[in-house]
Amino acid sequence: MSLAAKTKNISIVLYKPKYAGNVGSVARAAKNMGISKIVVVGETGLDREEMERRSTHLAADVLDQIRYCDSIEEALGDFHYIVGTTARLGKARGPFISPRAEAQKIAGLSQKNKIALLFGPEDTGLANDQLRLCHSVVTIPTSREFTSLNLSQAAMIVCYEIFTASSAGGGAEKAAQKLALASELEGMYGQLRALLTNIGFLNPENPEYWMLDVRRFFSRTGLLSREVKMIRGICRQLEWHAFNKKT
Amino acid sequence: MSLAAKTKNISIVLYKPKYAGNVGSVARAAKNMGISKIVVVGETGLDREEMERRSTHLAADVLDQIRYCDSIEEALGDFHYIVGTTARLGKARGPFISPRAEAQKIAGLSQKNKIALLFGPEDTGLANDQLRLCHSVVTIPTSREFTSLNLSQAAMIVCYEIFTASSAGGGAEKAAQKLALASELEGMYGQLRALLTNIGFLNPENPEYWMLDVRRFFSRTGLLSREVKMIRGICRQLEWHAFNKKT
Repeated sequence: MSLAAKTKNISIVLYKPKYAGNVGSVARAAKNMGISKIVVVGETGLDREEMERRSTHLAADVLDQIRYCDSIEEALGDFHYIVGTTARLGKARGPFISPRAEAQKIAGLSQKNKIALLFGPEDTGLANDQLRLCHSVVTIPTSREFTSLNLSQAAMIVCYEIFTASSAGGGAEKAAQKLALASELEGMYGQLRALLTNIGFLNPENPEYWMLDVRRFFSRTGLLSREVKMIRGICRQLEWHAFNKKT
Repeated sequence: MSLAAKTKNISIVLYKPKYAGNVGSVARAAKNMGISKIVVVGETGLDREEMERRSTHLAADVLDQIRYCDSIEEALGDFHYIVGTTARLGKARGPFISPRAEAQKIAGLSQKNKIALLFGPEDTGLANDQLRLCHSVVTIPTSREFTSLNLSQAAMIVCYEIFTASSAGGGAEKAAQKLALASELEGMYGQLRALLTNIGFLNPENPEYWMLDVRRFFSRTGLLSREVKMIRGICRQLEWHAFNKKT
């Protein structure tokens, strides 16, 4: 499989970027590394001229093809595997993976699956609400003294690692099974959340918080479509036994 | 030897940079990766404000310490090992080394030697006159379609590779999370088998056959000890709801 065939399945998703210049720089960095699809979520009037100045005219085609979405759910629905990025090392948010280790995985998965690389706003980064949608969360190693990376620099490092891993034929051994779509997974998580709340395993006040462990666990595995069906089948059966049978 | 002790011997030398913004971005990227020394050669009135805007105030100290030199000989005189960078692959200029391979070498050399990472002007890059002063020439791999990297992006990739190679266990993943013991797993599978049989999901004639899918699924993940506990907790709760409650 050619390098181009792998990277065509990879998109960069920028959640609420603040500065047009950064979007332009991301476009340039992405194209340097063979990635040409960018999705921008919740954009509010980014200056096109400033974007072009930083992308240079050679990456203007990447800007032309940017897909703009209002919501993150809309932006991510069609992807099979979503990689978040964060500089924070808060305990609740892990496990954190290095860009290099993640790139190995992506090099394999991108052969048959659509991959989203999700980056947050320049000032705050991704919040928990966005991170819980991710199958994996990458943290770029930095000096402890100064951990805040520029958005396009962070994007460059991740793209560079993927390019390097893909060029080396990395991950090829995995011959990539087709993963479940994000929309299938969200359906399953909804069902699980309802079931686990009903049986008192999740605190109804804040079920999403406890669901994070469940999400992380399933994400690590990389669920196949038929496994999602199996799990939903088990849930249905359990629901019936736990609640209907006794009436 | 500490990481800081290694990176203190590393400097970035910018030969005739044209844009103040790029110098600021290089300062930020360098500091992110623990490098705080920058030398600027042949500078002609770079706008300090523009530099600071892009370095952010957190890397302003790197800007304050920039050493300005008129000639490249003056700039490089005190270094033991000089690494040039080029995007060009003209035959006369090699041998070319990847940033990763070079970083391995630098991680060792920088313990006792002063290292210069030399970058050329944004438009032309380093010419042969500067490249011949280098002990080694690094070429960053890029897509063939668009090889021209932004100066600060190129600097970031080289600094990131050096940081990764220099960090203790750099690149090598923390992989060392403690997996669950086989005995813990078997306990969990036993509980799952009983539950799935009781709810009619497994055929009681041959439950192990159907359990294979479940085992495969969990094996792929590599379960942690605390995840086994979480799953068993869910099972207990489900059992109670499905069977005890209704009596």
